Amino acid sequence: MSLRMYDLAGADSAVRFSPYCWRAKMALAHKGLAVETIPWRFTEKDSIAFSGQERVPVLLDGENTVTDSWNIALYLDETYGDRPALFDSEAARAAGFFIKRWAELHLHPALVRLIVADIVDALDPVDGTYFRESREAALGMTLEDYCRARDDNLKALDVCLAPLRSSLKVTGFLGGLAPNCADYMVFGAFQWARCSSRGELLRPDDPVALWFGKLLALFEGLGAEAPRAFPA
Amino acid sequence: MSLRMYDLAGADSAVRFSPYCWRAKMALAHKGLAVETIPWRFTEKDSIAFSGQERVPVLLDGENTVTDSWNIALYLDETYGDRPALFDSEAARAAGFFIKRWAELHLHPALVRLIVADIVDALDPVDGTYFRESREAALGMTLEDYCRARDDNLKALDVCLAPLRSSLKVTGFLGGLAPNCADYMVFGAFQWARCSSRGELLRPDDPVALWFGKLLALFEGLGAEAPRAFPA
Repeated sequence: MSLRMYDLAGADSAVRFSPYCWRAKMALAHKGLAVETIPWRFTEKDSIAFSGQERVPVLLDGENTVTDSWNIALYLDETYGDRPALFDSEAARAAGFFIKRWAELHLHPALVRLIVADIVDALDPVDGTYFRESREAALGMTLEDYCRARDDNLKALDVCLAPLRSSLKVTGFLGGLAPNCADYMVFGAFQWARCSSRGELLRPDDPVALWFGKLLALFEGLGAEAPRAFPA
Repeated sequence: MSLRMYDLAGADSAVRFSPYCWRAKMALAHKGLAVETIPWRFTEKDSIAFSGQERVPVLLDGENTVTDSWNIALYLDETYGDRPALFDSEAARAAGFFIKRWAELHLHPALVRLIVADIVDALDPVDGTYFRESREAALGMTLEDYCRARDDNLKALDVCLAPLRSSLKVTGFLGGLAPNCADYMVFGAFQWARCSSRGELLRPDDPVALWFGKLLALFEGLGAEAPRAFPA
């Protein structure tokens, strides 16, 4: 058994910050599966063309190629059913899917306004140019303008996080007493910010920060030890 | 076994629209438990003072008094473990709690801007006066002013619903292939709007509307048959 995964890399190839790749790496670690990551950049679409799409993570497991962080989680639970479950029931998986979509549709946009200008600086120059041009075309403004009202953007993040904060205070993890894949779906967003941007987005005593700290420490500090583009 | 529940009633005592009471009624029906509801109004706090708090639902089960829609769900799964589970695992329950808090902190505020002026008209006059005065004091404006920008408020609801819409398209229910208590936590919000307000908030082909229609039909049309203050 030898698992390999294409993983978005920054200018420093040790810096890995894709929220989707972090979901997959945490899911693999939860299953106790070692993975060799292959640094990949936005402009290297040819190297993953064999997967039939243009995004990472791409997981290679023997003859199998699996793309998309959610599909990877389902694949791991199905293929490695004798290892700790990422979701312990169909209902947990369905609710986890809602949480994944909440993260992507509400949390990621709230975070991107706070970190996207930093991300450009964290990327390899060729990737940075591609990233800036494609995003600015989509937004219709410069990334700096998009990020300008930082105080307002921090307030919007605070509002966005209210349900997460409020539920973690009661349940500990989105998975309950222990983390499951629903936690990793949201962890990816904060690890994306941590590894690719300057400054802190959460107060240290925020229940979300406390939860994130526990997830960073999991799997012998897999998240905590990850190199950051702009170390604190 | 004889279950009774205090349930918020409108000017017409057959009209019941509390989102929290609807959660509890759907949870009871899911367990196959019959309940006798007792109409209750906001200004009748004395009649439920025995419960140690001032809100409905209040469930009476023999010697037991249980308040709060979430606590009622947990109580039912614990007490009636031989009946269909509201949550089939601890992880499903924890994720369901996040969904409950999302409904309360993001969905309810998006809905209330669209329905609160109607709610006053649906309430018993004494309750309506209490409700208007207490809410207007909290908001610092009239309810009509609060609801004024209906088109903007519909757009905000649409944005709020994006994760729900997107996940229901894939999973069918928040509980997966069949509804569970996570669905009822969100159902309450839409049934609140349906029973207390004028007009439609969702397009008929919206995946959220299709999901809501399936939930209305459950339990021999418990939700669908419920009297509305302003029938379509």
